[in-house]
Amino acid sequence: MSQKPSIPAGTRDFSPKETAGRNYIFDTVKSVFRNYGYQPIETPAMENLSTLLGKYGDEGDKLLFKILNSGDSFAGVDRELPSNSLAMKVCEKGLRYDLTVPLARYVVQHRNEIVFPFKRYQIQPVWRADRPQKGRYREFYQCDVDVIGTDSMLNELELAEIVDDVFGRLGIRVCIRINNRKILAGLAETCGFPEKLTDITVAIDKLEKIGLEEVENELRTDGLTDKAIAVIEPVLELEGGNNEKISAMRKVLSKSEIGAQGLDELSEVLSLISHAGISQSVVADFSLARGLNYYTGAIFEVKALDYEIGSICGGGRYDNLTGIFGLPGVSGVGISFGADRIYDVLKNLDKFPREAMRGTVMLFANMGSAEAAGSIPATRALRSAGISCEMYPDKRKLGKQFEYADKLGIRFVAVIGDEELKSSAVTIKDLSDGSQTKIPINEIVEFIRKKI
Amino acid sequence: MSQKPSIPAGTRDFSPKETAGRNYIFDTVKSVFRNYGYQPIETPAMENLSTLLGKYGDEGDKLLFKILNSGDSFAGVDRELPSNSLAMKVCEKGLRYDLTVPLARYVVQHRNEIVFPFKRYQIQPVWRADRPQKGRYREFYQCDVDVIGTDSMLNELELAEIVDDVFGRLGIRVCIRINNRKILAGLAETCGFPEKLTDITVAIDKLEKIGLEEVENELRTDGLTDKAIAVIEPVLELEGGNNEKISAMRKVLSKSEIGAQGLDELSEVLSLISHAGISQSVVADFSLARGLNYYTGAIFEVKALDYEIGSICGGGRYDNLTGIFGLPGVSGVGISFGADRIYDVLKNLDKFPREAMRGTVMLFANMGSAEAAGSIPATRALRSAGISCEMYPDKRKLGKQFEYADKLGIRFVAVIGDEELKSSAVTIKDLSDGSQTKIPINEIVEFIRKKI
Repeated sequence: MSQKPSIPAGTRDFSPKETAGRNYIFDTVKSVFRNYGYQPIETPAMENLSTLLGKYGDEGDKLLFKILNSGDSFAGVDRELPSNSLAMKVCEKGLRYDLTVPLARYVVQHRNEIVFPFKRYQIQPVWRADRPQKGRYREFYQCDVDVIGTDSMLNELELAEIVDDVFGRLGIRVCIRINNRKILAGLAETCGFPEKLTDITVAIDKLEKIGLEEVENELRTDGLTDKAIAVIEPVLELEGGNNEKISAMRKVLSKSEIGAQGLDELSEVLSLISHAGISQSVVADFSLARGLNYYTGAIFEVKALDYEIGSICGGGRYDNLTGIFGLPGVSGVGISFGADRIYDVLKNLDKFPREAMRGTVMLFANMGSAEAAGSIPATRALRSAGISCEMYPDKRKLGKQFEYADKLGIRFVAVIGDEELKSSAVTIKDLSDGSQTKIPINEIVEFIRKKI
Repeated sequence: MSQKPSIPAGTRDFSPKETAGRNYIFDTVKSVFRNYGYQPIETPAMENLSTLLGKYGDEGDKLLFKILNSGDSFAGVDRELPSNSLAMKVCEKGLRYDLTVPLARYVVQHRNEIVFPFKRYQIQPVWRADRPQKGRYREFYQCDVDVIGTDSMLNELELAEIVDDVFGRLGIRVCIRINNRKILAGLAETCGFPEKLTDITVAIDKLEKIGLEEVENELRTDGLTDKAIAVIEPVLELEGGNNEKISAMRKVLSKSEIGAQGLDELSEVLSLISHAGISQSVVADFSLARGLNYYTGAIFEVKALDYEIGSICGGGRYDNLTGIFGLPGVSGVGISFGADRIYDVLKNLDKFPREAMRGTVMLFANMGSAEAAGSIPATRALRSAGISCEMYPDKRKLGKQFEYADKLGIRFVAVIGDEELKSSAVTIKDLSDGSQTKIPINEIVEFIRKKI
């Protein structure tokens, strides 16, 4: 029986080229994370459903992929239960939905082995049963970097430096926007609706998308008075440098203690950042909310300046990450890089470096078994020198072999024919310019080294 | 509500140290694979169950993790179906069980984009609902390297070179055992029971475990006659060098065409290997079978010489990988490295290199906010030079900060106190020997470079 093969909706195969591009991104963020003292951890793809459920809201619960218990899953189970309850009976495990809940679980479970402050990074796939659509996948990687167990604003500085460094190395110009959840709380307090903090942040977070007028309509629908909106409106129109914006905001929030605290924190982070001399632009933006109920302090969001695609990195401070697992009072701050979008930015701006995407440097043409055997020492010499090479495994028409090199972007083809074999020589064709050179075989490493 | 956190049986968290060790293994195999012209691909964790079922035998089918369909999984489903059929109705996807079936599926699905011969490697986790036990996990990584679409024995050579290179770099002494499935077929033919090839290979594959006598008992139980066993027995006791063994085997299999073909192939591979000057030992072993029905030509197995743990790498040639998906006649050959066992070997032989396991090189003690701010340029200089460093985020007792460095194996602690700040100096304590040096802050990179 022959099957027409396919993969589940919302999942992807990655070709050699795509995988090389993705690995370039992962390797870059990893090396930056390590440079700042962050250490890698990995957690299982499957978590107990009890670990995952209730952490992402009702919507999130529905998006969890559940795994059928192995063995006779339905044995002894009341099959007439409502669909949802039945599912919970026959599934005890689910695929992880993000890297944050597994981190919280990890920190609590291993708290006696962990050295705090715990600086960890984690790069692994997550799964969400979202409706598949363009640019939204059911399996995608997250690259998270977090520090757990410290309140210091030096951590926020460090994350900003990491963002600066990562996108600097990738050659992507970005704008880093920063806010503080306490400023949003101060604003809700000042306009007289502290209990509507969530509604207010949800509304103003949409500013860029829907415009000022629509935000005001939404605030009105949420039950805010015109007087309250008059407090919020000017905040959304603040212009000028970060210091000017903060000064203006200090006046607005002059009577809110939490607002003042948020502004103090934001000022401190911005001052540290300017001290460090970050090269990307950093902008205080009081409309930035992200994940609202989740963050308790600093909020970050990063967008590419030269390609429109939404945020490519974001994060913030959360003050009670591990509380749900029985370890209250542990503060953390972290950011997450979106590998898929960063890939799209690099691809569209043509910023993947040639070295990172390079496959094999040299192909040895196969001219027959004696010639192939005679080529082996040269392949070993090149590989020892770290120059990737391969021999075409079958004796086929030379044209076919050159076609193979061409299709794979292999720059050099080495031909060792009968004549070369006798004279210990090799003829090297450089497909990048069509040039052809015959050299002694023992000079092959040096020859290639000079060319690349 | 507070939960006591745990992870599913048979799964693992990897600590920073473990992850660093594992990454060292993955990075090593990857760089070797690339050096030989293999390109990476990635496939989704979830495959359609129709892709996976029937590929691993009945036992394998039972070990597949099935994923409950999202949405209302039981809507419109006859719940009174037998357990197994009901499971198939509510689950359309499963977690991949190995990397070979996804490769076959990938090759068929993308055959029009692939350049053949297709040299690919793939390093991803797989999942099996095995009963959890010591050393057996439900989630583990496979590191597969395969070439598809070529019959040449140069591929077998290349795989042997890759094995040699990988374990050479890792510093593990191994024995590479090689056999050929056609020799086993020739043996079954010669002893008069060609139809019992599978039984025979299953039995003799156990030679090392259960001894010659038990193998003979098993062959007898399988229905082989004493005369047939008398043909097989001497083969299992063959001694001497590879050439001697092959000569002896040629006599035994003198009347079997397929046996002669297998011996020719094995000879050719061994001759290529000796030509290439592989440094690890390579041994022809006619009792080696591995996966029996799967392989059609060469069979490889690799064991560590200095630590007893079973095979750490293995593979072979399969002549009809993609047939089940409608693309017959495509030959492939590949090997798979077992990261978990290689990790255990490296750990037990204490072979992880210090550089690979090194975390942060330098910790900047935190002596207060002015001093911390004053340290920022030095942290940036070090990081620019690729020397990882971090600042202790909070101002705490110096003893606590040194304890942090000590626990994390951070070798150098930089102290910039009030006095150092005034004189643009830094005091560096080397925890490896307790020495302490005060130097101008702008010499810090050079100072550390000389030390590491």
